[in-house]
Amino acid sequence: MDELLEPLTKGDRRALSRAITLVESTRPDHRDRAQALIGALPDRQALRIGLSGTPGVGKSTFIEAFGTRLTEQGLRVAVLAVDPSSARSGGSILGDKTRMELLSRNPSAFIRPTPSSAQLGGVARRTREAIRLCEAAGHDVILIETVGVGQSETLVADMTDLFVLLLAPAGGDELQGVKRGIMEMADLILVNKADGELMSAARRTVADYAGALRLLRKRPQDPEGFPQALPVSAATGAGLDEAWDRMRQLFDWRRDHGHFDRIRAQQARHWFLAELRAGLLAQLDAPDARARIDDLGQSVAAGDIAPGIAAQQVLDWLGARE
Amino acid sequence: MDELLEPLTKGDRRALSRAITLVESTRPDHRDRAQALIGALPDRQALRIGLSGTPGVGKSTFIEAFGTRLTEQGLRVAVLAVDPSSARSGGSILGDKTRMELLSRNPSAFIRPTPSSAQLGGVARRTREAIRLCEAAGHDVILIETVGVGQSETLVADMTDLFVLLLAPAGGDELQGVKRGIMEMADLILVNKADGELMSAARRTVADYAGALRLLRKRPQDPEGFPQALPVSAATGAGLDEAWDRMRQLFDWRRDHGHFDRIRAQQARHWFLAELRAGLLAQLDAPDARARIDDLGQSVAAGDIAPGIAAQQVLDWLGARE
Repeated sequence: MDELLEPLTKGDRRALSRAITLVESTRPDHRDRAQALIGALPDRQALRIGLSGTPGVGKSTFIEAFGTRLTEQGLRVAVLAVDPSSARSGGSILGDKTRMELLSRNPSAFIRPTPSSAQLGGVARRTREAIRLCEAAGHDVILIETVGVGQSETLVADMTDLFVLLLAPAGGDELQGVKRGIMEMADLILVNKADGELMSAARRTVADYAGALRLLRKRPQDPEGFPQALPVSAATGAGLDEAWDRMRQLFDWRRDHGHFDRIRAQQARHWFLAELRAGLLAQLDAPDARARIDDLGQSVAAGDIAPGIAAQQVLDWLGARE
Repeated sequence: MDELLEPLTKGDRRALSRAITLVESTRPDHRDRAQALIGALPDRQALRIGLSGTPGVGKSTFIEAFGTRLTEQGLRVAVLAVDPSSARSGGSILGDKTRMELLSRNPSAFIRPTPSSAQLGGVARRTREAIRLCEAAGHDVILIETVGVGQSETLVADMTDLFVLLLAPAGGDELQGVKRGIMEMADLILVNKADGELMSAARRTVADYAGALRLLRKRPQDPEGFPQALPVSAATGAGLDEAWDRMRQLFDWRRDHGHFDRIRAQQARHWFLAELRAGLLAQLDAPDARARIDDLGQSVAAGDIAPGIAAQQVLDWLGARE
């Protein structure tokens, strides 16, 4: 049994950190150990909340205020991030903890920056496993933050129980700025900065999105009145309790009506298939495979061998089945 | 040596048709034969032109008029199609040859409907191979038609020497309807229906797009003044000769400056890597693999086994390398 398992399940933060570092590693022996550890975790369930919003909507401030409020109710909160841009920019949306100063010093909260390496696929695997680790470590709510760029939203929605879209107040004509696909994923739209001068703009934006949500096709996992749009202010705290109430309400309804288990089962199956495909393709990244592919790629580019025949040679060498 | 090889390279239409049917087949023995045939083809090069345009811009009429004009100059023309929607709808953009009645009866032209089966990946492989077959059969120009839906444009641009975007006249505010990514792929934008009442609207649209093209980043493969926008009329034939002149001009410049060979080499390498990935993932489609994956998927959904461990079991069973 892994030495991290016991302290992890007792809520030891260092053990949790080390376990996440383990699942982030691509070294084969680390992967094996990570798989075994994940397989041995107790079956605790947290409420997994995906949170999406483009830079500037006040995502950090919201998480800081919302997360602090949850810890005041006695809940343990973990914050993870899926940031596909971090690999390119070298920076990370959760790169420094000064973004959420209060929460990062809160003993009931655990903040983990997004790993700086890896493609989206790698980040997805790591995040799914980190969620399981945070659950096993006794967290009650896990917030998974992402930026509004489309593909990462789909990934995050496929590993969470609720998907929250955070927006800033805007004129009605900016409504089209949110892609339809992302609107269709949202369980709750929160319009932030509903305070001071922006209050009336925020209310208008809420009304606009409430109207847009009513036009969407009804989903089986939604009770009457959902998805919905609400005004919040991370700065004043207004609306945060109400937002949490709605999340609980939606979560309870889905659990009581079988949707929670159904959706989690479906997500687990997707995870399995994604791992399977990633594992097959990972064979191409081994140093000897890379060298062979580079050589053949040059022959293909030079016209000395047809692309399909070169591909078959690599497949044969890998021992892939016909 | 394959019995199709000799008649095919002599320009026999039936042999070409049968060879394309062969590359469309997914049967393993057909695949083997297709690979061997492709590998044995002589190295003839046609000008490969990708043509994109949403339904209603007059794509069929344009191909009919433009293709006929090329054959009148003594050129042999082949028309292929990449239509990702055909698998879903059962219909095809080239489903019946009545769309291009003249061209389909022209002995210097060869029209092949898109296959009705297959996902986009399969259509891509088939089209790449069909292009090679049409080249070997002595065609001088190969038109690859697609509908304006994004992903298929990228595929077609990655297998052609020139990418032409066909548009209809429109108000200036509709310019944003063309995705920036597709604009960036275009070597030539042709605004069709530049005749009769629509003449001045077509001229305005040409000017709008010419302006938009000037704002795009300069690409190394473009001579001064390209990409450019031109008015054409498939109905009256106006502008078709000029469009062909510009294509030749661009093609010659790229060939003389090394871009033609460089881009084809890069495309061949992409093709090789795409085939390799497709071949690896195809292992999951074998009946025994499917059965195993379905079983394990149910255990994963039920929570009896962790997704990563289940994936590893399938990978081990397939004999995939770590």
